[in-house]
Amino acid sequence: MSVTDELLANNRAYAAQFSGPLPLPPAEQVAVVACMDARIDVYRVLGLQEGEAHVIRNAGGVVTEDEIRSLAISQRLLGTREIILIHHTDCGMLTFTDDDFKRSIQQDVGVKPAWAAEAFGDLEEDVRQSVARIVGNPFLPVKDSVRGFVFDVATGELTEVQL
Amino acid sequence: MSVTDELLANNRAYAAQFSGPLPLPPAEQVAVVACMDARIDVYRVLGLQEGEAHVIRNAGGVVTEDEIRSLAISQRLLGTREIILIHHTDCGMLTFTDDDFKRSIQQDVGVKPAWAAEAFGDLEEDVRQSVARIVGNPFLPVKDSVRGFVFDVATGELTEVQL
Repeated sequence: MSVTDELLANNRAYAAQFSGPLPLPPAEQVAVVACMDARIDVYRVLGLQEGEAHVIRNAGGVVTEDEIRSLAISQRLLGTREIILIHHTDCGMLTFTDDDFKRSIQQDVGVKPAWAAEAFGDLEEDVRQSVARIVGNPFLPVKDSVRGFVFDVATGELTEVQL
Repeated sequence: MSVTDELLANNRAYAAQFSGPLPLPPAEQVAVVACMDARIDVYRVLGLQEGEAHVIRNAGGVVTEDEIRSLAISQRLLGTREIILIHHTDCGMLTFTDDDFKRSIQQDVGVKPAWAAEAFGDLEEDVRQSVARIVGNPFLPVKDSVRGFVFDVATGELTEVQL
């Protein structure tokens, strides 16, 4: 049995005790942008209930064009007004460079990605960079509360990054 | 008090009962790509524990360049071998068109986004499109198990999309 099949069996247990549906717009009007890291269960880390916040995640928790797209839809069509950015300690993005990663792909398949891998060497600097990409973007209308944090995978604590 | 501050207070309670750290590579070697919708608590929907799976999320749960980037890092550097795609009923992406959304931004701020908003009119078709973008991409080495699902926000159930 694949892991996917095991997780589908879990879903049947989840659905058996499910009560819904909740409304589409996030009740707390918040959007979270976090790293995809398996150790960050965003709902539990922030004490979120289902239906309260949009959760956007990718490798690093960085802000690229696709996060701008998601945040523009979140703010303009679904009414969110605060943004929480979460990077974390022991992140995979700290362990390689864009150049090396892309060269390894080129050596493997013959084609080098035209995109940036978005690796970074300093967590707090990259949180500030992610905030800066949001603040500087013309498509996001609500920028009063854009705050960045580092999640400590050893303690479970969020520490705010001073901008 | 902002919602962000309330969620930070929740985090202090979470950290107080936290035990870590777990290893960096996802224990179940799975990556999930799901919609950012607030009602989808991916860990609970799939019965995932912290540390088991990468979780990638955006507006729609679609596969754009940034999801390819995240999946390439997930597979090539952190060893994931299965991909689970999750779209859902009552999705905001079913309620608008790219043209209208981008025109409204242009009317608001004078600049039209150069990116696609990735709205869609048919859930199952868009799940198949997301799978196709993964299967057709040269940078992802492991494509044996790429399966797509629709999450029903009324029942909590995942239904597999036939490819």
